[in-house]
Amino acid sequence: MSEEEGITAKKADNFSDWYVQAVRKGDLADYSAVKGCMVVKPNGYYVWERVQEFLNALIKPDGVRNAYFPLLIPESLLRKEADHFAGFTPEVAWTSGSDKGEKEGEGERLAIRPTSETIICSEVAGWVRSHRGLPVRLNQWCSVLRWETKTTRLFLRTREFLWQEGHTFWAGKPEAEAEVLRILGFYKMVAEDLLCVPVVLGQKSESEKFAGAEYTTCMEAMMPDGRALQFGTSHHLGQGFSRAFGVKFLDPDNKEKLAYYNTWGSSTRMIGGLVMLHGDDRGIALPPKVAETQAVVIPIYFKDSQKEAVVSAAMKVAARLSDAGIRVQLDGRTDKTPGWKFNNYEMLGVPLRVEIGPRDVEKDQTVLVRRDTGEKSFAPAASIGTDASALLDRIQSDMLARARERLSRMTFTVSTKKEFLDVVENQKGFAIAPWCGSPECEKETQEKTGASTRMIPFGKPASSAEIAAAAPSGTCVGCGLPAKTVAYFSRAY
Amino acid sequence: MSEEEGITAKKADNFSDWYVQAVRKGDLADYSAVKGCMVVKPNGYYVWERVQEFLNALIKPDGVRNAYFPLLIPESLLRKEADHFAGFTPEVAWTSGSDKGEKEGEGERLAIRPTSETIICSEVAGWVRSHRGLPVRLNQWCSVLRWETKTTRLFLRTREFLWQEGHTFWAGKPEAEAEVLRILGFYKMVAEDLLCVPVVLGQKSESEKFAGAEYTTCMEAMMPDGRALQFGTSHHLGQGFSRAFGVKFLDPDNKEKLAYYNTWGSSTRMIGGLVMLHGDDRGIALPPKVAETQAVVIPIYFKDSQKEAVVSAAMKVAARLSDAGIRVQLDGRTDKTPGWKFNNYEMLGVPLRVEIGPRDVEKDQTVLVRRDTGEKSFAPAASIGTDASALLDRIQSDMLARARERLSRMTFTVSTKKEFLDVVENQKGFAIAPWCGSPECEKETQEKTGASTRMIPFGKPASSAEIAAAAPSGTCVGCGLPAKTVAYFSRAY
Repeated sequence: MSEEEGITAKKADNFSDWYVQAVRKGDLADYSAVKGCMVVKPNGYYVWERVQEFLNALIKPDGVRNAYFPLLIPESLLRKEADHFAGFTPEVAWTSGSDKGEKEGEGERLAIRPTSETIICSEVAGWVRSHRGLPVRLNQWCSVLRWETKTTRLFLRTREFLWQEGHTFWAGKPEAEAEVLRILGFYKMVAEDLLCVPVVLGQKSESEKFAGAEYTTCMEAMMPDGRALQFGTSHHLGQGFSRAFGVKFLDPDNKEKLAYYNTWGSSTRMIGGLVMLHGDDRGIALPPKVAETQAVVIPIYFKDSQKEAVVSAAMKVAARLSDAGIRVQLDGRTDKTPGWKFNNYEMLGVPLRVEIGPRDVEKDQTVLVRRDTGEKSFAPAASIGTDASALLDRIQSDMLARARERLSRMTFTVSTKKEFLDVVENQKGFAIAPWCGSPECEKETQEKTGASTRMIPFGKPASSAEIAAAAPSGTCVGCGLPAKTVAYFSRAY
Repeated sequence: MSEEEGITAKKADNFSDWYVQAVRKGDLADYSAVKGCMVVKPNGYYVWERVQEFLNALIKPDGVRNAYFPLLIPESLLRKEADHFAGFTPEVAWTSGSDKGEKEGEGERLAIRPTSETIICSEVAGWVRSHRGLPVRLNQWCSVLRWETKTTRLFLRTREFLWQEGHTFWAGKPEAEAEVLRILGFYKMVAEDLLCVPVVLGQKSESEKFAGAEYTTCMEAMMPDGRALQFGTSHHLGQGFSRAFGVKFLDPDNKEKLAYYNTWGSSTRMIGGLVMLHGDDRGIALPPKVAETQAVVIPIYFKDSQKEAVVSAAMKVAARLSDAGIRVQLDGRTDKTPGWKFNNYEMLGVPLRVEIGPRDVEKDQTVLVRRDTGEKSFAPAASIGTDASALLDRIQSDMLARARERLSRMTFTVSTKKEFLDVVENQKGFAIAPWCGSPECEKETQEKTGASTRMIPFGKPASSAEIAAAAPSGTCVGCGLPAKTVAYFSRAY
């Protein structure tokens, strides 16, 4: 424990202070000596390693291969795709190399990677010749730098963050578009099956889409304070980047074609979402699948004469848990009280506490305490391995189930402006609302209410052309004109 | 295959050209649009992922935890340890953020991480309070940037490269020093048991040690052209950084002490060593443990009437190899000849080729061809799984054994200047030679012969104090004065 005290802010009273304390005292991450940049501490990095392992196990069998592209991107490359350049340039940090460096005028200014579309397209253009060489499906795990000037929030908004970025090139549009949704499905599995954060899927509006994309699909989670958190995006970029960078191939008829291009990304901000959703006033609560320590065994005794029997029983229990494949830690420290340890491991989010006292030794049992609910149960020492495994599985599924219930309670279908404002201002959560589809109305609504369009659910008109062509479906909650589609609205991180 | 042609340079005639072609046509890495920076392509990144997995499986059970620290380091932090700053500054690339960025004078210049001692010490100083909180043992997998002005060589010298850097803090010097050697032992396992590159271990001379270290231990491999390649280093940094950054703790007597500090690193340059040592005129040769495709199955038929039987047998064989846990690929393409495929997979370094022709189908057998030796053998189709597994194991151990023999042939113990010059100029390899220990002699010897001290074998006087105190042991091969220790000399990458 890096701090002796517990968390002083209440989640219900001061969500923002509570969050920072939960992350820091849960040893997940901390501020650093570098403004806007965080340190991902071992507890937090372990969660990220599990995300890496889980997602790799989905994308690699699907045919994606990991690679690594340069951190630095020449300014001329970044300028090649106009929309993209306009979208990213304000946030780009630049370098001109070392003090000795190049001779004057020899080198151009280099961007520190804010995202890698430009550098990857420029390289892949040299790899592809024929349709037989497609698809090229690449992914890289790396950090990116975006020169945010807003307040830093650990995991949620930092200048540097860790992510993966997938970049795939296809001969045909249908295969490319199928991948966009397949990847989004993988992301949903990471969010829900690994991190216990339920998400809703859909498509971004024209003004919220990725700079340079034809369209952006996304998943969004709802935080307890009523603000949505974007959890991952999967874009179809059409042929724009391929045109700008010359990613061409000969089709079976020996005609030159441009490759269709997808990119998709997910980042460490997911860890922030996990904290917000599952943490409580005692600290963070980690789903068993991403907890480095899944169970902590704590021996409890009051007299020296009890020590040997209790500690010896605790060691046996820890060995059985480990044999059952559980990542277990035995805390036999004598300079800390059991109560201190309880608080400490609750703050660190350890999913299961296993207590053993003199009476438990007599009865050949252990006390199991769940981090997520605080619920206590007894397990015979003999079957502790299977019992604890089953309980950890239950904790994992219960955490998701409870979060799903909450998401459902925080999702409102509205049809009038009054209902809409009530959700945004009082109820807090997603308002699924009729919308005219106009970017001007979208902007004005956001300025007035703080709520932006988070996504248009699949199956509804999404691109500006589709929206324009759609038949009316009610009255827009923003401007009152005829609605042409439906959107999820809410405040957002 | 990214290029249709094979490798045009001969390893024996033009080693340097051969190397670049082998790396590029083996699809391991390539130059990029960014001067001095490389792209690590999927074939090469797969090797790096196996290194990560292998080393993680050694260091994590030993108690090291992975984490992530900022890419950017404020100049003031970098300046705090004087020797370190002097050693690294010329190679540091700087950024001042984005164009909009901070207001004038608000922010200081930031270094793009050349190595992370300064940022990690500055953070860990805030984590440690008592001896009970030690050791703190961290590792990060990341890229570093060093603004090289010499010619770029893929994997061997690039401005950006991938590495891991371990940073560990200890209450006592003996435990810290024990770790230095334990990690060096882990590195040796990576080099030899995974990559089939034998290494020699020892300590760097005073002038070759890491900037800011008390001493540097290292492992060095010998390349076929007679130049040594540093394969990994493990440093003990004493208390200098802890003093500069305030990494202090209360010992059991409540006295404030400074932590002892180790750092250790290994990088993607190991992949370059693997290529140089095991590649041949046909391309790279990957050890089975790091090859994404361990075996490729190639059906061979001359008439259409043979096709069905051959392809069907090839598919069964591929399935059996996969069932045996072998990473297998079946190349049934009809637009490439078997001969083209043979060349292609040899260029890509696939350890084992499995051929199946009409006659093999009749005899219910397959032809196995080793990439490392070209040796052919037959295996019954029924036992192909176990036979191929055993053969892959043998390839792995034979590759190391042959490299060990070569290292031994390229290592010479010399006692006179004449013998020394003969090794350095004609024989090529390591000269183990008596040395006076003086940095001036070391420098002059390097200037005159191109050979630098690679290391002082363990057990010999190594620090300047030890060397000064040592009894004479022959005549220094550099200056002719009485020798006080023994060193490995050679040219180096």
